[in-house]
Amino acid sequence: MGEFMTETQQNPSPAVEEPPHQGPAPVGQEGPPDGQEAAVILEEARISVDPELRRAVASLPDSMRRVVRYHFGWEHADGTPAAGNAGKAIRPALVLTAAEALGGQRTTAVRAAAAVELVHNFTLLHDDVMDRDTTRRHRPTAWTVFGDADAVLAGDSLQALAHRLLADDPHPASSAAAARLADCVVELCAGQHTDTEMERRGPDDITLDEVLAMAEAKTGALLGCACALGALYAGADITDVEALDAFGREAGLAFQFIDDVIGIWGDPRCTGKPAGADLMARKKSLPVVAALASGTPAGAELAELYRVPYRDGDLERTVLAVERAGGRDWAQLQAADRMARALDHLCRAVPDPEAAGGLLSLAEFVTRRST
Amino acid sequence: MGEFMTETQQNPSPAVEEPPHQGPAPVGQEGPPDGQEAAVILEEARISVDPELRRAVASLPDSMRRVVRYHFGWEHADGTPAAGNAGKAIRPALVLTAAEALGGQRTTAVRAAAAVELVHNFTLLHDDVMDRDTTRRHRPTAWTVFGDADAVLAGDSLQALAHRLLADDPHPASSAAAARLADCVVELCAGQHTDTEMERRGPDDITLDEVLAMAEAKTGALLGCACALGALYAGADITDVEALDAFGREAGLAFQFIDDVIGIWGDPRCTGKPAGADLMARKKSLPVVAALASGTPAGAELAELYRVPYRDGDLERTVLAVERAGGRDWAQLQAADRMARALDHLCRAVPDPEAAGGLLSLAEFVTRRST
Repeated sequence: MGEFMTETQQNPSPAVEEPPHQGPAPVGQEGPPDGQEAAVILEEARISVDPELRRAVASLPDSMRRVVRYHFGWEHADGTPAAGNAGKAIRPALVLTAAEALGGQRTTAVRAAAAVELVHNFTLLHDDVMDRDTTRRHRPTAWTVFGDADAVLAGDSLQALAHRLLADDPHPASSAAAARLADCVVELCAGQHTDTEMERRGPDDITLDEVLAMAEAKTGALLGCACALGALYAGADITDVEALDAFGREAGLAFQFIDDVIGIWGDPRCTGKPAGADLMARKKSLPVVAALASGTPAGAELAELYRVPYRDGDLERTVLAVERAGGRDWAQLQAADRMARALDHLCRAVPDPEAAGGLLSLAEFVTRRST
Repeated sequence: MGEFMTETQQNPSPAVEEPPHQGPAPVGQEGPPDGQEAAVILEEARISVDPELRRAVASLPDSMRRVVRYHFGWEHADGTPAAGNAGKAIRPALVLTAAEALGGQRTTAVRAAAAVELVHNFTLLHDDVMDRDTTRRHRPTAWTVFGDADAVLAGDSLQALAHRLLADDPHPASSAAAARLADCVVELCAGQHTDTEMERRGPDDITLDEVLAMAEAKTGALLGCACALGALYAGADITDVEALDAFGREAGLAFQFIDDVIGIWGDPRCTGKPAGADLMARKKSLPVVAALASGTPAGAELAELYRVPYRDGDLERTVLAVERAGGRDWAQLQAADRMARALDHLCRAVPDPEAAGGLLSLAEFVTRRST
């Protein structure tokens, strides 16, 4: 990755003083991002999956339901209805769009799509407890409102609900989907283990390979699983299922690169997190580890900063150190590279560009999003 | 429950000074307990299920596997092999024995039995974190060795593994079993929620109904589910499946009554827990809540003791207060009553005493055990 590192910024990015709602530059694409088609796909996925999700959550006992409804943004902490911001439904959209791309019916894959979204939210609930993250989707995290125990139990219940949906699904692919989803959960857990374990290590003690493997397990695995489940529900053969998994994994890694960039240089009004929160918490995100491993003076300065807890006024220096060490440029190039790999996998399974269009739009959306 | 409460002990039980290895008096039975047949069934179940469990755990990534192998007693904390004490395999034994009792083949239900055991251990891992319990099966709990995050993640992985086993199982009942097991997980979570939530309340603020409902959810549900899964794997109709579930639930409640009695009056060398640990932690176990609700002077004294944290020397007074308020007698009578109900349910589904013999032995074992 050395070649991507540059101490001199040719076109210095505006970093924290960036104007609101602009976000990072488009990745691996020319011209301005056009999220139009993706926005439609995401909205359709939400409309399809939301009733299934709400039905599943409604089946929970009171004590679990209130935590989950709060977490999904359907209720306030006091149980009164809320407008709701349950996230972008990227994973359910991938399931449904993959099913369609492989010649299946979207409607038959709705339960699988809901199951993937339930697993995603189970991991969010648990990760927030472990990471002591206090904000999610612009609101206090569930554990800060209901306590650690209830957040963990609500997560446990969501994992169970996900498997419940698949166990009840008469579709011939539902067992294979359940097996794949279970494997994915294990991979997500291993990824989260590595993440928490790495947080305890010093800044000089993390390799890029480790952080990439962690990102693949934490983010790539579930996006890959979502695509693979769509393919399974379309009756695709194992080669195409694996190609869709690989597509989703690579797109997921691209997503993670951009997400980490946004976590540092994004607008907090869009991200829903305080500016630089990850840096202040000394998180070893992809651009940070790349910067630490860059062998540049800025990388050494970043390591110095990371060796001690955050002190007032450090944020701007930290942001600049990551940028000057090439962390931002590298992450954006990596995102483009992963997207290229994702498209290769997609082309193998879905050579017809029209059939592949929806998945392509979603993949571009996640690597272009400014929120 | 008033009639079971007695301030005067006709046959005062020896409480804490009880001789070792004797345990509480047999419940609802005449003559000494004979765990012979149950011991054979449990050992056979362990032999059948152990390879399946070990294979499933071996499929986990390194980071999860070491926590799980430690938790099961197969490894020491440093990863060296341990003699192993993975618990009594009551739940797998119930699955296999129920399958046989309903005319099915034990061998076909081995994966389901392993799945139930994995779910049981997932909940133990999580409950120990929430309850801050430091000892399990005579060893430090997983979270004390590996930290909260890894214990939670290992539990998450075990739930996933349980569903993985059923998803892979070609038996025609596997989907119905997976749905039932998922529902059971949700019930276990709700039970654990009630448990942790009750611990935060004062001693006067807990009703017997609540603590009974909690015990049914936390203990009865999974024993019921184990029996129901066995029935499903035998191809039983829904009436018999439900009867087996009810049998397991009632036996599970009987078990919990006895377990709580043992938790107070049992020999720590057998229980693996320090004497009176639950009382010192001010846990609202069934005999304690019964004693608190007894309206007796001893119950009032117990409430006084429970209003403040444990102080050195209180233990003997606390034990005696529970006993004098009738908590022990009540719990033992309740255990006998639940056993009678369990047998009613069993007779409905399995009228042939010979076919029902194994389940009967197991139910008697759990309400007689002194360890």
